[in-house]
Amino acid sequence: MSRRQFVNDPDQVVPEALEGFVLAHPTLLRLHADAGYVTRAKPATGKVTLVSGGGSGHEPLHTGFVGTGMLDAAVPGAVFASPTAYQVAAATTTVDIGHGVLQIVKNYTGDVLNFRIAAEIAADNGIAVEQVLVDDDLASERADGEGPGRRGTAAVVVVEKLCGALAEQGAALPQLARFGRELVRDSRSMGVALAAGAHPGEHLPAWELADDEVELGVGIHGERGVGRRAFATADELTADLLDRLVAALGLARGDNTLVVVNSLGATHGLEVALVHRAVHQQLAGRGITVARSLIGSYVTSLDMAGLSITLVRADDTRVALWDAPVRTPALTW
Amino acid sequence: MSRRQFVNDPDQVVPEALEGFVLAHPTLLRLHADAGYVTRAKPATGKVTLVSGGGSGHEPLHTGFVGTGMLDAAVPGAVFASPTAYQVAAATTTVDIGHGVLQIVKNYTGDVLNFRIAAEIAADNGIAVEQVLVDDDLASERADGEGPGRRGTAAVVVVEKLCGALAEQGAALPQLARFGRELVRDSRSMGVALAAGAHPGEHLPAWELADDEVELGVGIHGERGVGRRAFATADELTADLLDRLVAALGLARGDNTLVVVNSLGATHGLEVALVHRAVHQQLAGRGITVARSLIGSYVTSLDMAGLSITLVRADDTRVALWDAPVRTPALTW
Repeated sequence: MSRRQFVNDPDQVVPEALEGFVLAHPTLLRLHADAGYVTRAKPATGKVTLVSGGGSGHEPLHTGFVGTGMLDAAVPGAVFASPTAYQVAAATTTVDIGHGVLQIVKNYTGDVLNFRIAAEIAADNGIAVEQVLVDDDLASERADGEGPGRRGTAAVVVVEKLCGALAEQGAALPQLARFGRELVRDSRSMGVALAAGAHPGEHLPAWELADDEVELGVGIHGERGVGRRAFATADELTADLLDRLVAALGLARGDNTLVVVNSLGATHGLEVALVHRAVHQQLAGRGITVARSLIGSYVTSLDMAGLSITLVRADDTRVALWDAPVRTPALTW
Repeated sequence: MSRRQFVNDPDQVVPEALEGFVLAHPTLLRLHADAGYVTRAKPATGKVTLVSGGGSGHEPLHTGFVGTGMLDAAVPGAVFASPTAYQVAAATTTVDIGHGVLQIVKNYTGDVLNFRIAAEIAADNGIAVEQVLVDDDLASERADGEGPGRRGTAAVVVVEKLCGALAEQGAALPQLARFGRELVRDSRSMGVALAAGAHPGEHLPAWELADDEVELGVGIHGERGVGRRAFATADELTADLLDRLVAALGLARGDNTLVVVNSLGATHGLEVALVHRAVHQQLAGRGITVARSLIGSYVTSLDMAGLSITLVRADDTRVALWDAPVRTPALTW
């Protein structure tokens, strides 16, 4: 089956979508069209500012998380491509209000490189910059520690939410960076796909699955996963992911978690909710508490049919930061 | 291509998803599992209460809109099937706090019948009930006025939001019903699909489209549309829908609107935002103002690839009700 999209010029998908998104959220967002980034409509005062970004195609990430309690700026690249160092440096310089800038970076080679160059440019201009590198995707972990390391996926939403809340409370830059890195250390995600997505302007999915198999450990850029397994019930697929996540984090009876069940695009809210029920029940069966959970489409991979589960080790501080007020296009409470 | 879902027993999709959804929103929602409906976790006081419902598969509709400033209860049926009159009557009776109940009903034969019976049961129990019938789907309008009339689609979100806000302000039941009916009269939607969705447990899409065509005026239950047209750019498809909507509402230069650009399921946020830009630009070109807009997945048709555009004639009262605080799983500001 072919895949079509609502597109004009495939090369203009991101700038046109960015303009349309900001037009829908005029009280929250301001578009910096020439440099290609988005900031809060009303700049923050007296706090460390937060910048994130990365390839497009994962919406509402990151533009949907700009606003009070989360990011100060988001810098989108082209679809599945890093923003340029110039874009990131411009956003970093714009949002700094003298307290330094925390950059939240998903672990992909291009993002890491361009955010690092941007941080150096900003530092040359006298801006203090720290980075939190998000690498939660368990499927991309190699036992030998070689290679680029684990990819960054849906835990980035939790990192942006909690670091954003801590920044609003007045935390200094080094404290924020330390908090963020510890949070990442305690976060793992894993995805499973029932079908691949398609790149805008391209008609065919990136890969095909047989009717009786699913792609386990799929990434958020249409990357193949770590392997295939037999298609099974939602409860069985959930158990497979949870087994790995619980082991990786060393979670045990009595532990507390923050949970994200995230649609990778085409997977419906009914399915996400149904899987969330399974996560809740199965963790309870292991004596692990779900303190808070977020279910929906937060870190997508275009229109991929699939979902990811993220577990984050929780304590009272993290739960309180989760509960702190937030007002962004995609997350408000 | 086959379509698979995250499902256990296909007959248990709705109750399992409902349980998982309420588990994710424990401070907002309360599950009434036996009767099969959801209410606010904390019942309202001193106001008319609002009940809506309908077939499942359109999530976040309606359960996602239960909370302060919108609904008091939502009653889901099976996928694409009306809830029973018993379910609706039970929810209506539960939420009434002596000021009467406004039922918001999408215009489908089963829903109309079962909500009417439920209203009669409630009336027999001394509860004042009024109904607002939502019939915004322009594609299902027949020139001769025969048949069941226009279907109810995404305008229902605007009706629930604005009536919900008016109820919180203390409006009496007859005033609320009149307001809602006038709002519906001034609302029209139209959808376009790039591919059909698939029913949970079934592997094949409901219908197939050639690579060079789109389905115009598609419904939210996998219904075929009013016809097919050539695939075209997002701007051209938007213009086609807007031509019809503007004419149907008789909108003219100087008029003001509320806009919803709604993904029917698999259509990505990038595309929705890009189409919103087109709506904004093209209405501006006609001298019509977009006062407020809502973009995202609000009234889905399982994993259908497509979107709908809703226009609602706006005035100061309606804009103020739109802006009033709301706190539900799917809409909060």
